[in-house]
Amino acid sequence: MAIELVPLCSVHAQLKPPIEVGAGPSGTRLIIEVASARLKGERLAGEMVGTAGGDWVLVGPDGTGTLDVRVAFRTDDGAVVFVQYNGRADVSQGINLPLTVYVAPRFETCDERYLWLNRVQAIGKGTVHEDFSLDYEWYEAR
Amino acid sequence: MAIELVPLCSVHAQLKPPIEVGAGPSGTRLIIEVASARLKGERLAGEMVGTAGGDWVLVGPDGTGTLDVRVAFRTDDGAVVFVQYNGRADVSQGINLPLTVYVAPRFETCDERYLWLNRVQAIGKGTVHEDFSLDYEWYEAR
Amino acid sequence: MAIELVPLCSVHAQLKPPIEVGAGPSGTRLIIEVASARLKGERLAGEMVGTAGGDWVLVGPDGTGTLDVRVAFRTDDGAVVFVQYNGRADVSQGINLPLTVYVAPRFETCDERYLWLNRVQAIGKGTVHEDFSLDYEWYEAR
Amino acid sequence: MAIELVPLCSVHAQLKPPIEVGAGPSGTRLIIEVASARLKGERLAGEMVGTAGGDWVLVGPDGTGTLDVRVAFRTDDGAVVFVQYNGRADVSQGINLPLTVYVAPRFETCDERYLWLNRVQAIGKGTVHEDFSLDYEWYEAR
Repeated sequence: MAIELVPLCSVHAQLKPPIEVGAGPSGTRLIIEVASARLKGERLAGEMVGTAGGDWVLVGPDGTGTLDVRVAFRTDDGAVVFVQYNGRADVSQGINLPLTVYVAPRFETCDERYLWLNRVQAIGKGTVHEDFSLDYEWYEAR
Repeated sequence: MAIELVPLCSVHAQLKPPIEVGAGPSGTRLIIEVASARLKGERLAGEMVGTAGGDWVLVGPDGTGTLDVRVAFRTDDGAVVFVQYNGRADVSQGINLPLTVYVAPRFETCDERYLWLNRVQAIGKGTVHEDFSLDYEWYEAR
Repeated sequence: MAIELVPLCSVHAQLKPPIEVGAGPSGTRLIIEVASARLKGERLAGEMVGTAGGDWVLVGPDGTGTLDVRVAFRTDDGAVVFVQYNGRADVSQGINLPLTVYVAPRFETCDERYLWLNRVQAIGKGTVHEDFSLDYEWYEAR
Repeated sequence: MAIELVPLCSVHAQLKPPIEVGAGPSGTRLIIEVASARLKGERLAGEMVGTAGGDWVLVGPDGTGTLDVRVAFRTDDGAVVFVQYNGRADVSQGINLPLTVYVAPRFETCDERYLWLNRVQAIGKGTVHEDFSLDYEWYEAR
């Protein structure tokens, strides 16, 4: 039952400066909108569609960052794929860039060619850089 | 223990044409981005901020529409308020406009003047019109 | 577009003493399991089924309580109905019983006789009493 | 930025027969309650507490199973740890046991000795056996 990580795609995104909702009922909320994002891989490649891509991050009083991301993509061969995930980051020393983040993407599509993607639980690791660009590697857990 | 509905605000929004993710793991997903939105009321008035406002709607095989909305606002007096809600619509006869929707908004802010808003469970009723504009009345349950 | 509240049912539940997860990434988590629950109304009446009914409450640093409830019921005429909701409570003065809570239930069932329930966004008001019993009135927003 | 999987714990659980909510607004819902569960590892070991542990599974019309799990544990050294996760399973050929599932657990605790756990995004693979027992291996993504 050993788990195998099969490469799915790399992700390169440009984030916008956060909208600071601040300390509320579930911790400190930042809305980090995605300006652009590209998926690059042999099995999955595409570009963000629309403008409602973002990370509705929560920073807890205990120094844990919880990612809460929704982004839609159009693959290079024309399928619409919605990606949604939570994840964690250690911000116990503050939100200092570059920051390492860990995420667990799930996918939704109706395109026959990508139905396999609906059944994938992915895991990824990424870095948010000083210029608010973001790089990930995503893997399929198998 | 009778419930009282205290007017909170009206909402007027302009929606964009849906991004159709289609029939996936949780039903048929449409992403309906919000182009602009305005809250208007004595206790709460403001304008949408950012571009990551939207409704990640699901249409179930049983003819139920489930709203899943996230939008951030800046009030006219400068507070950032994040609004998030689910809701329901009857689409058993198809998604025909005008469409009546029922929603249950909750709010998050760190602004001292609006902390009362964090504790409100709101309920609202609205109409999505043929031109993809949207009108709501939201009430505080008390 | 005035909203109308149509009585749906009253709820009487007995809660167990909380499991205290404590201050974590999203605030202070309490798990309040439901020992028993009964829905009573002309259109909806039934009894909790199973043991996995509970409220995974979060208490925020700002004094807001956020309810996060899941309970399954069997109606008196044999339909299984799953109820799930968020809600709010003002705990800025601490969690003092009796406590008033506001909730926004949504329902899921496959039973033909209750498909109308899937399309209902409900709103409710309740009281958690000193003996950890709970009384609600739930209404259909129409 | 290569991802490393560091063993976290194995999980052995006994599930109850499902409560079938059936085909509703988000797909076909099964509530699979957890009768007992044990975490076993050098860094994390403990036993399920309470009765409100379960998986509120959805089976989509596309043959994708989506796990939605909440369980609380008490570690052998006395900390309360709440675990919550989504995950995926391929049920396009029906729900046939044994079934392989992939999950992405996140943790919440206030115990000083386990604050590191709050910042972990885990990934796991498991098997649901014919007797409704369940075995997982969980790893920390690092």
